[in-house]
Amino acid sequence: MSKNITTPSILPGFMELLPADQLLFNDLLDKIRKTYEKFGFIPLDTPMIEKSEILLAKSGGDTEKQIYRFQKGDNDLSLRFDLTVPLARYVAQHFGELTFPFRRYHIGKVFRGERPQRGRFREFYQCDIDIIGSETLSIINEAEILSVIHETFLALGFQNFTIRINNRKILNGFYEGLGIVDKGGVLRVLDKLDKIGVDAIKKELSEMAIACDVIDKIMDFVAITGDKQDILNTLLAIDSDSEMFKLGVQELQEVCGYIDAFGVPSENYAIDLSIARGLDYYTGTIYETVLNDYPSIGSVCSGGRYDALAESYTKQKLPGVGISIGLTRLFYQLKEAGIIKASKATPTDILIIPMQGAMPYALQVASKLRGQDIPTEVYLNEGKLKKQFGYADKLGIPYCIVIGEEEMQTGLLTMKNMQTGTQEKVNIDSIGALMK
Amino acid sequence: MSKNITTPSILPGFMELLPADQLLFNDLLDKIRKTYEKFGFIPLDTPMIEKSEILLAKSGGDTEKQIYRFQKGDNDLSLRFDLTVPLARYVAQHFGELTFPFRRYHIGKVFRGERPQRGRFREFYQCDIDIIGSETLSIINEAEILSVIHETFLALGFQNFTIRINNRKILNGFYEGLGIVDKGGVLRVLDKLDKIGVDAIKKELSEMAIACDVIDKIMDFVAITGDKQDILNTLLAIDSDSEMFKLGVQELQEVCGYIDAFGVPSENYAIDLSIARGLDYYTGTIYETVLNDYPSIGSVCSGGRYDALAESYTKQKLPGVGISIGLTRLFYQLKEAGIIKASKATPTDILIIPMQGAMPYALQVASKLRGQDIPTEVYLNEGKLKKQFGYADKLGIPYCIVIGEEEMQTGLLTMKNMQTGTQEKVNIDSIGALMK
Repeated sequence: MSKNITTPSILPGFMELLPADQLLFNDLLDKIRKTYEKFGFIPLDTPMIEKSEILLAKSGGDTEKQIYRFQKGDNDLSLRFDLTVPLARYVAQHFGELTFPFRRYHIGKVFRGERPQRGRFREFYQCDIDIIGSETLSIINEAEILSVIHETFLALGFQNFTIRINNRKILNGFYEGLGIVDKGGVLRVLDKLDKIGVDAIKKELSEMAIACDVIDKIMDFVAITGDKQDILNTLLAIDSDSEMFKLGVQELQEVCGYIDAFGVPSENYAIDLSIARGLDYYTGTIYETVLNDYPSIGSVCSGGRYDALAESYTKQKLPGVGISIGLTRLFYQLKEAGIIKASKATPTDILIIPMQGAMPYALQVASKLRGQDIPTEVYLNEGKLKKQFGYADKLGIPYCIVIGEEEMQTGLLTMKNMQTGTQEKVNIDSIGALMK
Repeated sequence: MSKNITTPSILPGFMELLPADQLLFNDLLDKIRKTYEKFGFIPLDTPMIEKSEILLAKSGGDTEKQIYRFQKGDNDLSLRFDLTVPLARYVAQHFGELTFPFRRYHIGKVFRGERPQRGRFREFYQCDIDIIGSETLSIINEAEILSVIHETFLALGFQNFTIRINNRKILNGFYEGLGIVDKGGVLRVLDKLDKIGVDAIKKELSEMAIACDVIDKIMDFVAITGDKQDILNTLLAIDSDSEMFKLGVQELQEVCGYIDAFGVPSENYAIDLSIARGLDYYTGTIYETVLNDYPSIGSVCSGGRYDALAESYTKQKLPGVGISIGLTRLFYQLKEAGIIKASKATPTDILIIPMQGAMPYALQVASKLRGQDIPTEVYLNEGKLKKQFGYADKLGIPYCIVIGEEEMQTGLLTMKNMQTGTQEKVNIDSIGALMK
């Protein structure tokens, strides 16, 4: 009887990992999760599928184009394209049952039907934290979020990274002061500075009918660099009649003061007036994070302060601040650049290989080791010793214990270190200590 | 300016939890994951969206009706409806890159557009483990899977549960011996025994044109009960000329022997010849798990041995054995029955409340506590002491530390137990020990 075979494959733009990489990916995921929890963020899980009217309540053209939208029965459904819109819906829906400030983290997949291209994914993990206030939210939260980014990237094994901050009030106020109406448009152009360079930016701005002297002022402003105090001094010296600008400078100063109190070292953050973040809804501090040794990767963690999270779903005023790590893309980039490398292809730390007649004893030993939280596997299938060691080798299992007559009689186990080849006689109770 | 408000809501049949329940749910998820990893199962993550031709390669009518299927660009896409089909596709696709036996676990959401009803979900978590062999897979794996079920339910906090096992070869062989052609049909009818009772079963069987004396033999067979050894003895005494039946009895005997070696106590498992599992692809041991104090919940963990996992995608012979826990439904049922109860609504263990001027010191203390892996939050927003304690109360944060002048000078912290109201002076270095 011949059967139809469907060639096994997945769609382009979707990530699927082999075991060793999956373990590596999960390790990053765990480190992010643990860091978020250490700061008291509450885990949240919302449906992957929501009503289209909810997800598209407030969205621009790109979202509409990229969203996976479909009909099932009478329902107009969509897959979530980020974790922020579901958060807004959640907080509005459960407002009376939540305690504010509401600190939540959400790690989950989101879906965007983009044109597939290298390093871009249609299904990817976002790792978000947000702090949502009811009516008000103290500015110190904007510093705390930065300290969480700092701790998270330390936990991920990075030291040499810079969290760049700016303040949308400074940007909005400055452009308002220059009489520019389409601030959002200008900011979107400036957001491309790193990618297309000064001249191209100037050209685009002049195409927006902005006068040359104003463009010069903009470029001067964007070019302000230096250390934290230099930039703050320069900003304080700017004579703007925008109240918003002044408030923004004051906020930036305040946030920097708190950041120091949070113990984030100066080398890990910087003021960068050129960052603007495309999204229009940010209203205070904005963040981007770069790995200094790999600038081409771009920002690996971004976000900011916003004042009207859930205005599409409620009249409650819900200011907040949050950030997002796009882990699927980051993982892909770190792998490509050789920054992270897989080792083991299994959680197993010890493989027990039972000789003829030793299975029951081997199972007891395994049970004891698992009782000490040591992931342990018993080789259950037939095969020669060589094949069994080969299995351990291929999976990167660090230790093997062969159990035969002698071990069963003496209770002393021989542990083979698969990397060095050395063997050691150990008592079962001391293995736990040995593994640490 | 008035804005359009979209009433925030989610679709029926989707589960969304408030923080305290979410923490409880995640705790179950973590316990399952840790148990699976202790047995050396490898985590796997596959796309939520796959090609429809892959997911529907081998499926019956229900799947086609329930699957979420849609078009995006030129692609015919579907959301996965279980984790087994993606596993089959994965193993066939990556066959050359995997090490066999391939032991994987997969915890993730699956989607079924069922008619919504109480306790049924359209999006739900499955927690699966499978062991896949290449060409062969020793029968001892069927005993190990049972021991993993046992460990998992212990980890979830249950003692009084029974893992019921049966063997499909016994069933198939027995019915073959009776000359029944549509064995699958008979098994599907018998699978409803608990629900509809003996008489209704007899009626349905006679409607299948099965002779009365054969129906009697079937009912006698299904009625075989007793302890493990009784049942095995009865089976050994049955005079069937089906080789398959004899092999099945031998396998069941063998599996029971191994189960004892795995250290699973007799009270946690039983042979039950009435279980059949609806799916046609099982070929050896099959499992169902019931919580003895809550029989109405039905099976909370089921699965079995199969011989042709990926035949739709490859000519490789890939026998395996696996089980699945439908955690969303189980969680809902355990909550409804009052078996599990939420306590904390945050991961935070300590809330630090800084008095005027104590913020920098409070942030340092928090940082030290987080360094000891204690989830710690600093109350960052304005408010009176009463409001801040109220925040801790509402979230169920177990300890508060108020930091003022005195604490900053002496370095001695006052920890308030929020449940008992008692206070204790502690040194920051001893808090870690105190929390354990």
